[in-house]
Amino acid sequence: MIFHRICCLHRKVILMRTIDWKEESKSVVLVDQTLLPKEYRIIECKTLSSLCEAINSLRIRGAPALGAAGGFGITLAALRSEARDLETMVKDLEVAGKVLKSIRPTAVNLGWGVDRVLRAISDAFDIQGIQDIAFQEAMNIAEEDVATNKIIGEYGAKLLKEGDTVLTHCNAGRLSCVDWGTALGVVRSAIAEGKKIKVIACETRPLNQGSRITTWELMQDKIPVTLIADSMAGWAMHQGLVDSVLVGADRITQDVIFNKIGTYTHSILAKEHEIPFYVAAPISTFDFNGWEGSVKIEMRSPEELRFFGSEQCAPIDVEVYNPAFDATPMENVTAIITEKGVFYPPFLLDEVLV
Amino acid sequence: MIFHRICCLHRKVILMRTIDWKEESKSVVLVDQTLLPKEYRIIECKTLSSLCEAINSLRIRGAPALGAAGGFGITLAALRSEARDLETMVKDLEVAGKVLKSIRPTAVNLGWGVDRVLRAISDAFDIQGIQDIAFQEAMNIAEEDVATNKIIGEYGAKLLKEGDTVLTHCNAGRLSCVDWGTALGVVRSAIAEGKKIKVIACETRPLNQGSRITTWELMQDKIPVTLIADSMAGWAMHQGLVDSVLVGADRITQDVIFNKIGTYTHSILAKEHEIPFYVAAPISTFDFNGWEGSVKIEMRSPEELRFFGSEQCAPIDVEVYNPAFDATPMENVTAIITEKGVFYPPFLLDEVLV
Repeated sequence: MIFHRICCLHRKVILMRTIDWKEESKSVVLVDQTLLPKEYRIIECKTLSSLCEAINSLRIRGAPALGAAGGFGITLAALRSEARDLETMVKDLEVAGKVLKSIRPTAVNLGWGVDRVLRAISDAFDIQGIQDIAFQEAMNIAEEDVATNKIIGEYGAKLLKEGDTVLTHCNAGRLSCVDWGTALGVVRSAIAEGKKIKVIACETRPLNQGSRITTWELMQDKIPVTLIADSMAGWAMHQGLVDSVLVGADRITQDVIFNKIGTYTHSILAKEHEIPFYVAAPISTFDFNGWEGSVKIEMRSPEELRFFGSEQCAPIDVEVYNPAFDATPMENVTAIITEKGVFYPPFLLDEVLV
Repeated sequence: MIFHRICCLHRKVILMRTIDWKEESKSVVLVDQTLLPKEYRIIECKTLSSLCEAINSLRIRGAPALGAAGGFGITLAALRSEARDLETMVKDLEVAGKVLKSIRPTAVNLGWGVDRVLRAISDAFDIQGIQDIAFQEAMNIAEEDVATNKIIGEYGAKLLKEGDTVLTHCNAGRLSCVDWGTALGVVRSAIAEGKKIKVIACETRPLNQGSRITTWELMQDKIPVTLIADSMAGWAMHQGLVDSVLVGADRITQDVIFNKIGTYTHSILAKEHEIPFYVAAPISTFDFNGWEGSVKIEMRSPEELRFFGSEQCAPIDVEVYNPAFDATPMENVTAIITEKGVFYPPFLLDEVLV
C-alpha cells in the first residue's frame, strides 16, 4: 500500500498533497511552506520531534492541514514507541498528544486531529492494533479533508459567475489543507465546471501568505492571479475589478468569523461596494458554543513588522500592534459555504448541526 | 550668512531640515531618506546632477520637499554655470529646469518650485543678480513651506482633543516637507499646545514610508507611535483605538483627494466607524481645474510587491496591480485643513481661493 500520492496536474513541479504518508519509510512527508515561492521542497519527518519542529516553524500551517498533522503525529509516535505493552504505549501516545497540542495552542484543528486518533486507538487490543488503527485514522482525517473540500467547492462554485474576479486574503487554498482548499477550492471547482474565474490575492501582511503561497499555488494550476497590497483592496473594488470576496475561516462562532487580520476590513469594503462577501469553511471550523468575546486573539511578535526576512523596515524599538486574527460580524457576511450546504443570514447554527 | 540650521529638539540625532542650503560650500544638504530608519545621513549636493540623482533615487521625496528641491536645483545651476552673459545663463537655467521636471513628471510641486525661481530671475540685470535672486527665492520657498505648515498645524490642532489617537497613512510629516509636516504637523502643533496625542502609523505598503519614515520621525520627537500593518486599520477602529484619521494629499481636485494608495480604504473604514477623516495640505496642493478623471494614476513597478529589498516575497513572474495613489471622494472627507483655514463640506473651491 503506497500512500505517497503524486499529482501531475501542474506546470512547473510535480505537486503532492500538502501533507501525506510515505509508506516505504513509514514517515510523514510535507511541503516546506517557509521556502515558498523560492523553492518547492518536500521534507520527510521520521520522528514526532521532527514533525513538531515543522509545525513550530510553520513549515506546515493552515487549520485543516494541522488537523492531519495532529493525526499523523500520533501515528509516528505509535510506530516509533519502544513500549512493549498496551498500557505503556497508550501513556506514550497521551504524552505525544500533549506535546503536539502545546506547539500551537490556538490551532483548534491540531488538537482535534490528535484527539480523534487517540479516541480511535482506545479500541485496540495490542500494540500492533494501536499502530494500525492510528495510521488508518490519520489517513481517514486526510482523505476526509480532501473530500470535504471538494463538496465545499461544488456548493461554492454555484455562487461564482462566468468571468468573475474573486478577491481573497491570506491562503485558504490547497496548502492550508491536505488538498484542493476551502476558498481556493471553490475557485478550483468553478473552473473545473468550465467557468473562467480570476483571482486577486492580497499579499496579507505581515507574513505574506497571500503573496508567497496563494499566488504560487494558483500559478501552479494556471489559474489567473493578480497580486495586490492589502491596502489596494478598496481601490480595486472602487474600480470595479472585484465581483466577490471569498475567504476561509479559522473559527466561526455564533456571532463572528475569526480569520486572518485584514478580513474584517475587506468585509466593510465589500459592504460599501455592494459586493458579496463569502466565507468557505468545513463544519469542523464551527465553534458552536463560542462567541466573539470568548476567544482571545493571538498577538504576534513585533518583529514581524520591524523586519521583512533579514531586511529592517522600521525602527528596531518601535511599538507594534500585531494581532494575528480579527473577527468579522455575521451581518457583513453574505453566505457561509460548508460541506453541508450554503448558509445565508440569519446564520442559525442549529441549521448547520442538522 | 549661515543657513545650515540645526535643530536640537531631538533625543537621538541632531536633526536638520529635510532639505536646506549650506552656505560654506554653497551646496544643497538633505536627509537621505532611503537609508532610514537604519541610518540618518546628511548628503551634500554640490551640483545639479547630484541633486537630480537624489530626487531620482527618492533620497528626497514628498510634495512640499520637492518644491524646495526644485528651487534649490535652479540655484545650484546658476552658481555652477560657466555662462559669461545674462542671456546664456538664462538659457542654461531653462535647460536645468527641464531636466529637473523630467525626473518626476507627476510631482507637481517640483515643477512649481522650478518655475517660481525661473520667474523670479527674470527681474535680474546681470549674472550676479540671477544668482542672488535664485538663491533668495529658493530660500523663500523653503521658509514659506515651514511657515505654511505651522499655520496648518495651528488650524488642525483645534480638531484634536486631549488624549486622542490619530491614525495616519504614508508620511505627511517633517520628512515630506522642509520641516514640521502637514498631517504630522497638526499632531506636533496639538502637542505643542499641551495636548497628549498618540499616533497609529500604517506601514504603507509597498514602499513602507509609514514604518520606515513616519515612525522614525515621531520617535525622534518622542511622540508616542504604534506601527500597524495597513490591513489592521479597520480592526483597530473596531476596537475603539482610533479617534480620527489624518492624512496628507498629493493633489486635491474639485471632487477627490489624490493620496497614497490605501487612503481611500481608510476613508471607507472611518465612515463605517463614524470617525472623522481629515486631510491636511497647503493650498499649493489644490488643482482648481482638475477632477478625478483628469488625473492619470501612476502605476509603479511590479517588483515593489515581488521583492522587499533583497528578499523575494512572491513568484518573480506573478502579475501585479500596483497603483501609487488612489482618489478619495469628498463625501468621505470630514474636513480639509489648509493654511487658509479649515474647510468643511460642501468643499467649494471658491472658498479656498478667497
